[in-house]
Amino acid sequence: MNQDLFLYNSIGGQKVKFEPINPPFVGMYVCGPTVYSDVHLGNCRTFLTFDLLYRYLTHLGYKVRYVRNITDAGHLENDADAGEDKIAKKARLEELEPMEIVQRYTVGFRHVMGLFNMLPPSIEPTATGHIVEQIEMVKKIMEKGLAYEVNGSVYFDVIKYQEQFKNYGELSGRKIDELIAGAGAEKRTLEGQDEKRNPVDFAIWKKASPYHIMRWVSPWGEGFPGWHLECSAMSTKYLGEEFDIHGGGMDLKFPHHEAEIAQNNACCNHGGPRIWLHSNMLTVNGKRMGKSEGNAFLPEELFAGSHPLLTKGYSPMTVRFFMLQAHYRSTLDFSNEALHAAEKGFKRITDAVNLLASLKSGVASDFNWKQWESEVYAAMNDDLNSPVAIAHLFEAAKRINSISEGKESVSKEDLERIQYFIPVFLQDVLGIRNENMAAGNEENTVDGLMQLIINLRNEARFRKDFQTSDIIRDSLKEVGIQLKDGKEGTGWEKTTS
Amino acid sequence: MNQDLFLYNSIGGQKVKFEPINPPFVGMYVCGPTVYSDVHLGNCRTFLTFDLLYRYLTHLGYKVRYVRNITDAGHLENDADAGEDKIAKKARLEELEPMEIVQRYTVGFRHVMGLFNMLPPSIEPTATGHIVEQIEMVKKIMEKGLAYEVNGSVYFDVIKYQEQFKNYGELSGRKIDELIAGAGAEKRTLEGQDEKRNPVDFAIWKKASPYHIMRWVSPWGEGFPGWHLECSAMSTKYLGEEFDIHGGGMDLKFPHHEAEIAQNNACCNHGGPRIWLHSNMLTVNGKRMGKSEGNAFLPEELFAGSHPLLTKGYSPMTVRFFMLQAHYRSTLDFSNEALHAAEKGFKRITDAVNLLASLKSGVASDFNWKQWESEVYAAMNDDLNSPVAIAHLFEAAKRINSISEGKESVSKEDLERIQYFIPVFLQDVLGIRNENMAAGNEENTVDGLMQLIINLRNEARFRKDFQTSDIIRDSLKEVGIQLKDGKEGTGWEKTTS
Repeated sequence: MNQDLFLYNSIGGQKVKFEPINPPFVGMYVCGPTVYSDVHLGNCRTFLTFDLLYRYLTHLGYKVRYVRNITDAGHLENDADAGEDKIAKKARLEELEPMEIVQRYTVGFRHVMGLFNMLPPSIEPTATGHIVEQIEMVKKIMEKGLAYEVNGSVYFDVIKYQEQFKNYGELSGRKIDELIAGAGAEKRTLEGQDEKRNPVDFAIWKKASPYHIMRWVSPWGEGFPGWHLECSAMSTKYLGEEFDIHGGGMDLKFPHHEAEIAQNNACCNHGGPRIWLHSNMLTVNGKRMGKSEGNAFLPEELFAGSHPLLTKGYSPMTVRFFMLQAHYRSTLDFSNEALHAAEKGFKRITDAVNLLASLKSGVASDFNWKQWESEVYAAMNDDLNSPVAIAHLFEAAKRINSISEGKESVSKEDLERIQYFIPVFLQDVLGIRNENMAAGNEENTVDGLMQLIINLRNEARFRKDFQTSDIIRDSLKEVGIQLKDGKEGTGWEKTTS
Repeated sequence: MNQDLFLYNSIGGQKVKFEPINPPFVGMYVCGPTVYSDVHLGNCRTFLTFDLLYRYLTHLGYKVRYVRNITDAGHLENDADAGEDKIAKKARLEELEPMEIVQRYTVGFRHVMGLFNMLPPSIEPTATGHIVEQIEMVKKIMEKGLAYEVNGSVYFDVIKYQEQFKNYGELSGRKIDELIAGAGAEKRTLEGQDEKRNPVDFAIWKKASPYHIMRWVSPWGEGFPGWHLECSAMSTKYLGEEFDIHGGGMDLKFPHHEAEIAQNNACCNHGGPRIWLHSNMLTVNGKRMGKSEGNAFLPEELFAGSHPLLTKGYSPMTVRFFMLQAHYRSTLDFSNEALHAAEKGFKRITDAVNLLASLKSGVASDFNWKQWESEVYAAMNDDLNSPVAIAHLFEAAKRINSISEGKESVSKEDLERIQYFIPVFLQDVLGIRNENMAAGNEENTVDGLMQLIINLRNEARFRKDFQTSDIIRDSLKEVGIQLKDGKEGTGWEKTTS
């Protein structure tokens, strides 16, 4: 923790020095997935951003309680408070119990997070797991006079809230007057809209219509919580009324996060987090990637290379590396070419890391490795600038290759330092599994053996021992390897796998 | 579903024909883990039993809703209703929020389930996720006059229940008079015991003491649900008041399952499941394996071979196979020798499966394969008799080897049948990943190449070409392989990995 970390706070719109409320403990809340469909790559990028932050804070010595929720109820179709519940709709379409939908996509989500080597959060609470807490929060907000019940639903009174707290719209940069004008102009026929005192108000508890499956008993009759409420209730429960960091995708700023702040203030006189972080979106050929845009990639399509935009598949670690090569607040454009370049770069770095153990030290270093290491930290401390940190890794890879080739020297002390630091930084902080090395071991063995066999065969042919040369070819066929003699020597390929 | 499946119902104590209430749908509830420590092998055996049943029912064409809960609150230390909450205690000892404990061990549990190739259930509900439902159930039971509140806790009135339903003890074979006598003789100083009208009564809602972290608002003040209640509430919610199958470990019969039946009847006039299945325990050298017995194996110790009772590690699939070689209602004794034998048997079967694709058919079969297949089904239909089914697989393996060696003939029709049926049965029903085949590919390649190289080296030495023989030895060293010349020929081992 002898590092000054600066993070860009969406409230205030500038980088601020990170100072936890109660060091060395850090409370971090991140909005997780709504589990009604497969997680797409845009979501993965958001979770990767906060995985990186979680890893870096842990690396710096903080004890982080990282809470990332699972939205398994209450998230309605238009992201506000009208339309059908996303999970209930999917359940209806697939003729399943909503919680079967939740389970299927939660299992899938965890699987993809695992492929990307994302650490599980410390707590993974669900909306349905906190109905009691949400009902209690609704009660408190009503007691403060900032919510009202109409016909079994409870709405947050944004106008009254604004009179008191004067900060609604601060996070998302929206003006309440414009919101009112805009909302007023919207179609008013959406269910529940006419129950609101003002169109900017939002539901914190919704009455369940007779056909609504997901429903709970409440003081206002059977219903379900508003989507925004769960995050306020769960962050308060597990991190306290005031906590350090709240993260999420940029698209959640409004209305979701704005509503969270209002609910927190209304309930507890604290807005919740001190720092709001927002991860930018993924684009595909310049357009936002999203389920509604119809251009969302599934991770599986990417790994298998089965998406029409791709010419081949890319490993999860390549994709992770690719994403980390952009700063989390920048948009990141997805294309075959960009992924291909990332794959080559990734290999360059892991190849160099694989050389580290075998490097020999000299009397002195031709390069200031200490300075280099502090620059890596400086990049990370500058609002998690992973692309700059990775650029430093490329520099290191170049140097390692030079050292390995004997063109450059490294002192014993520096060598020990980088032999420790580089793998730690790559694996623990960036979360990159060195799969080139891991998978490489088996492959390398086969490669090495094949090289030896080809040499022996060449030698047999040289001394005109064609019997041996034929035995070699036939024996290889039996283990599923086909030799290919060409102008540039003998190659081979596997015929079965 | 053209198979008559018989299952041993713990109520009634005999095998009954399985007839789902609403075919082809089947509702199955299984008591899952209390996530306050690593899952041990005894638990794994229970979950394997119901994974097998889930797979077999699905194989037969049933549409199974398989609900397995996660107990993340309410399970007190003595398994009844006194003592500290198991999760809260662990949280206190490790200075963590209880839900961090829950997350850690839930993640670990899912990981182990994955290693054993157990399918995720259709729904995996948590106790904390169903507080509202549990409170509602308590209310209903109180309305029926079968529970009473004392000082913020609510107790189930077993005596009154028994007067009305006359079946308390039927599942576990206990007599209520003896229970009363036994409980009365127990130490009465346990917290809450003196609040009960009768010592056999059990808590369905417990008042939270001031230091109790896990607490929820209820009509009876802040508290938490009794352990037994969650399963009644969740099975009713997801499977209905009457459903097909309830499973769990034998040790849960009393008091847990007995209490569930009573709660279900009291609330809804249905006992819940029609069939109760109980999986027997794992023993270690004849003694029950359990956390409290201090002889529990962790799956990791078994895979790594790091437990003092083991001489080597065994793969998850070997262990799965080992467990399936015992009937689920028999005890299964764990020993190094038994595992070793299972490993050999497992390899025998997968080796034969690996031969299947390359078998050549003849004019007629020397063996009645149709009869054989129906015997495999007969074994499974006889209360999931997996050891008998596996014995049939051994028979098949023997035959396959004979066919492969040309000593026995198989008709085209039969060959196609077993080429389809055996892998399906092994993988889909028994849930055995053919890892010998999968992992074998890479290893087989290296093995094959090494055999060729050793032959070439022997041949070089035979013609006294020691230069080549030395080059081979040195080249192998470079790829991390050490040759070992011995009396019985030349062997090799990897020096790095």
